Amino acid sequence: MALPPTRQVVQVLRYPDGIPREQDFGMDRRPLAAPTAGEVVVRNHWLSLDPCLRPLLGGRYAIPRPERGAVVPGGAVGRVVESNAEHLGVGDWVVGDTGWCDYAVMSQDVLRRVDPDLAPPSTALGVLGIPGLTAWAGMHTIGRPQPGETVLVSTAAGAVGSVAGQLARRAGCRTVGIAGLEAKCMIAREAFGFDECVSHLSPGFAEDLRAACPDGIDVYFDNVGGPVLEAALSLLRPQARVVLCGLSSQYNQSGRPPGPNLGPVIAARATLQGLVVFDHLDRFDEFTNEVAPLVRDGSVQYRESVSDGLASAPTAFIAMMSGRNLGKSLVRLAE
Amino acid sequence: MALPPTRQVVQVLRYPDGIPREQDFGMDRRPLAAPTAGEVVVRNHWLSLDPCLRPLLGGRYAIPRPERGAVVPGGAVGRVVESNAEHLGVGDWVVGDTGWCDYAVMSQDVLRRVDPDLAPPSTALGVLGIPGLTAWAGMHTIGRPQPGETVLVSTAAGAVGSVAGQLARRAGCRTVGIAGLEAKCMIAREAFGFDECVSHLSPGFAEDLRAACPDGIDVYFDNVGGPVLEAALSLLRPQARVVLCGLSSQYNQSGRPPGPNLGPVIAARATLQGLVVFDHLDRFDEFTNEVAPLVRDGSVQYRESVSDGLASAPTAFIAMMSGRNLGKSLVRLAE
Repeated sequence: MALPPTRQVVQVLRYPDGIPREQDFGMDRRPLAAPTAGEVVVRNHWLSLDPCLRPLLGGRYAIPRPERGAVVPGGAVGRVVESNAEHLGVGDWVVGDTGWCDYAVMSQDVLRRVDPDLAPPSTALGVLGIPGLTAWAGMHTIGRPQPGETVLVSTAAGAVGSVAGQLARRAGCRTVGIAGLEAKCMIAREAFGFDECVSHLSPGFAEDLRAACPDGIDVYFDNVGGPVLEAALSLLRPQARVVLCGLSSQYNQSGRPPGPNLGPVIAARATLQGLVVFDHLDRFDEFTNEVAPLVRDGSVQYRESVSDGLASAPTAFIAMMSGRNLGKSLVRLAE
Repeated sequence: MALPPTRQVVQVLRYPDGIPREQDFGMDRRPLAAPTAGEVVVRNHWLSLDPCLRPLLGGRYAIPRPERGAVVPGGAVGRVVESNAEHLGVGDWVVGDTGWCDYAVMSQDVLRRVDPDLAPPSTALGVLGIPGLTAWAGMHTIGRPQPGETVLVSTAAGAVGSVAGQLARRAGCRTVGIAGLEAKCMIAREAFGFDECVSHLSPGFAEDLRAACPDGIDVYFDNVGGPVLEAALSLLRPQARVVLCGLSSQYNQSGRPPGPNLGPVIAARATLQGLVVFDHLDRFDEFTNEVAPLVRDGSVQYRESVSDGLASAPTAFIAMMSGRNLGKSLVRLAE
């Protein structure tokens, strides 16, 4: 297959202020180099849009934010279209952090092979990818849900939350979700099996949550921080476990808002422990062996928000950051 | 010994607003009942003034706050002056929650015997009492300081913090204290062996703290919450352990101020776990066997702020809540 001489990328034009805007990103065309020894050329099929991009662009992380003009960082699933590497051949499905682009030259060392017979390759970015691993690792190492317990999950209809809730339900727990739009709450209940799901957009959110958790909360899988976390902390049962996994409520904010009161943590003797999924990459096989069959037979459900074409990525990302997506957000570049 | 027909007590007159004031308390004289079967009459020698009284009076705890007119709650050390109980005899030293009073009729079941040969009986309210146990349990179960680590302790010159810092130093750690007044910082360094101690009253507190912990913090024993906790969280090293033990920065406030940002907790994969000392009462013997010899030979130092006479208790308590005390605050009623 003849490769094009250039590749199309989305670049960072400006660092967002508040909710990202179209003009923060720009399309560009750049030369496509030939792969050197150990490298392959990947044609991307699926890009991942991750909420963590927003704080990354906001400079909230310890690592430097991408420079203006850089390719927008992000994961993708694609197929090898040219190989100069011994372990990957043309036609292989792979996943890796190519950034937002149609073609990428990548070292084989930073790509993970995807088995297309296991599940649709796009799942390598969602339920069988980093989001699924995040949920699984959080539940296994921190949440440790026990039968009969109440497990609360925020972003219940999202890529991480939906898996977290289902794993907890399979462990014999009563699961309560938190989401924004009523459509998300409905799918959380109907597709992901949450016993209840309350909207944090409701003016009576705190009361709704209390009513949904009459016996308190044993495990809280938190992806949002802020007032939702604060409401959850006030309902912790003794020895509750809180998976602090995300702070999406703050991702669009420039400053750091005041956080929740920790008094209830003391009262409940709760354990709070930060989770960073990259600590658990060595357990990918274990995770896959357990969860993949469940996805395959439908025991673990998932949803994707798909937009088409690389140029749609900014809009789709903005939609996600505005809360208008559902499940795992994806951009489809090729089938 | 002939018992007086009445006993003197300090009663709750008003619930404090802000820093407690004299007029929130009132003296009273009440009948002293004869002990029924299983009861003794205790003549108090030492009252304990505990910061947690303030939030108790503020209604912050799950238990109801004492009614107006009730004896101010608090621990005390005294001697049995009349016994109708098989396990305690006249002359025995005991410690228990008698409230603020000179004489109390108490069931033997709620008193703990104090060995006056072990250490001065007043230490049963401080370094060998609940505050010492708090520090010890927090370090043993949550902090788990390892040789070479940096351990940060707030209220470093206080009843809990001074013990926490010393235990950490004995474990081979570099210890950094936080206190208010410069006099507290000095005694934290000179008596309690903190390598450094910074004042949270300094306008440059955050920078001072950072300079004192150039390699970050492995263990933080937090007794204060609020901005001090927030500053500490920003310096956590990976796998740091934070003992959430008190929120004294908020005790005088009616509302609940916004708390610290939890982002650094995630970034550091830190474990946060509430500590409530009452979970550890069954380990009193183990604790005593370990720490008492260290107090006795001076390896573990302590300080007491002593005021004389029951009527001095409100003023002494107010002084403590205003930050003007040192070490364990005590009221001396008799020697």
